[in-house]
Amino acid sequence: MPAALIVHAHPEPRSFVSGMKDVACDVLGGAGYDVTVSDLYAQPFDPVAKPSDFTDRQNPSYLRYAREQRHAFKAGALAPDVQREFDRLMAADLLVLTFPLFWFSTPAILKGWFDRVLLPGPVYSGRRIYDRGGLAGKRAIVGCALGGRRHMFGENAVHGHLEALLSHLLRGTLGYTGLSVLPPFCAHHVPYLEKSDRNALMKGWSRHLGQIDSLDPIPMPNLDDFDDLLRPLVELDGSASQDA
Amino acid sequence: MPAALIVHAHPEPRSFVSGMKDVACDVLGGAGYDVTVSDLYAQPFDPVAKPSDFTDRQNPSYLRYAREQRHAFKAGALAPDVQREFDRLMAADLLVLTFPLFWFSTPAILKGWFDRVLLPGPVYSGRRIYDRGGLAGKRAIVGCALGGRRHMFGENAVHGHLEALLSHLLRGTLGYTGLSVLPPFCAHHVPYLEKSDRNALMKGWSRHLGQIDSLDPIPMPNLDDFDDLLRPLVELDGSASQDA
Repeated sequence: MPAALIVHAHPEPRSFVSGMKDVACDVLGGAGYDVTVSDLYAQPFDPVAKPSDFTDRQNPSYLRYAREQRHAFKAGALAPDVQREFDRLMAADLLVLTFPLFWFSTPAILKGWFDRVLLPGPVYSGRRIYDRGGLAGKRAIVGCALGGRRHMFGENAVHGHLEALLSHLLRGTLGYTGLSVLPPFCAHHVPYLEKSDRNALMKGWSRHLGQIDSLDPIPMPNLDDFDDLLRPLVELDGSASQDA
Repeated sequence: MPAALIVHAHPEPRSFVSGMKDVACDVLGGAGYDVTVSDLYAQPFDPVAKPSDFTDRQNPSYLRYAREQRHAFKAGALAPDVQREFDRLMAADLLVLTFPLFWFSTPAILKGWFDRVLLPGPVYSGRRIYDRGGLAGKRAIVGCALGGRRHMFGENAVHGHLEALLSHLLRGTLGYTGLSVLPPFCAHHVPYLEKSDRNALMKGWSRHLGQIDSLDPIPMPNLDDFDDLLRPLVELDGSASQDA
């Protein structure tokens, strides 16, 4: 039985985005997934990366956060909430993120879930990123809502491409860890819509989730194309990057 | 006397990035700025957007965060920490952000400063964005450190362009509010450098800050090019977008 982890971040339980979380539970449960929900506001989850994230420190007097994450993971010295979220992530075949777009990114409570839970070592390391990342073999999908209209995004649009603004998340976070990142579902203009239009958007999200097995993941770098220092092996013109 | 607000986010006071904050204080103070520091970890700042951010609610039973921000700003009902940070921002001519790059973005504690402090109404509204944003006339500059090497970023590089990964911050957050966004200073590979190389990077940051008056801001959209619904007035081929 495949497992799905829904990480949800909205402060209003009756919001459209909280409805997206509920729909994800229903659709994935109906498709045979064992669904777990991390409702970050309901927990509540503390998003701040901080010294007390570790019950044992490699260097108690100077905090290098990523090094302490590696140490604490090996030593079993992670704060209980980080360990719990990490265990849920590693048990999942599919990661679903539901959130309102704040400043073209996730709300801080979800940003901190990445900061604290995506551990160097098991999730990624120097050359274990993208297709070689620790989460390779798992999939991820984003469902978000925003105030902006569809015509505000695109080649000639006022904000440019939404996927470009989200590249730090889709590529730099989810893809970086090895996750196969499915196309996001972005519900536009939600705060200003009538109920019928909202309902239509929610049906679109349900359909999107219902067809995840037929969605093509967003292309990510293939580390075969890079050397041990992650320099490109082949330049754009096709010649080898090393001196002739 | 011009005023600068440095918003700093690093959990280790003796870190390289905390040194960047100190250098910014020195350089800007020496250049005649009245410098205020918001050290988010030292405060500590709570980054979670939540119901208790408002001492009075327009709708106490259903949280629409942005609407309550507008209401609380007008009603003088913002949580004291939000009001203090907002007042500091509005008093500043120059906003400096110093932080370590976490997942190609800011640490959650700084992300939440954007979520809670960049208030709809005074900072932006539907058509008051970019050059018409509430912070127009002020400048912003980012100083950050990351683990990656310089060759990992660029046209053919493993992560693509760093400026593209940071577009949610530089354009979608800072530029969106009307700030003139100066080129960021990104210190690469910091956790792995010898002290002498770190010192050289710190001197580079000091020089970068010392010449801010000669740095050209990153280009942002000009709202004269868009209609009242923020649709582009002129298509890429130069013809008017409206039907002929």
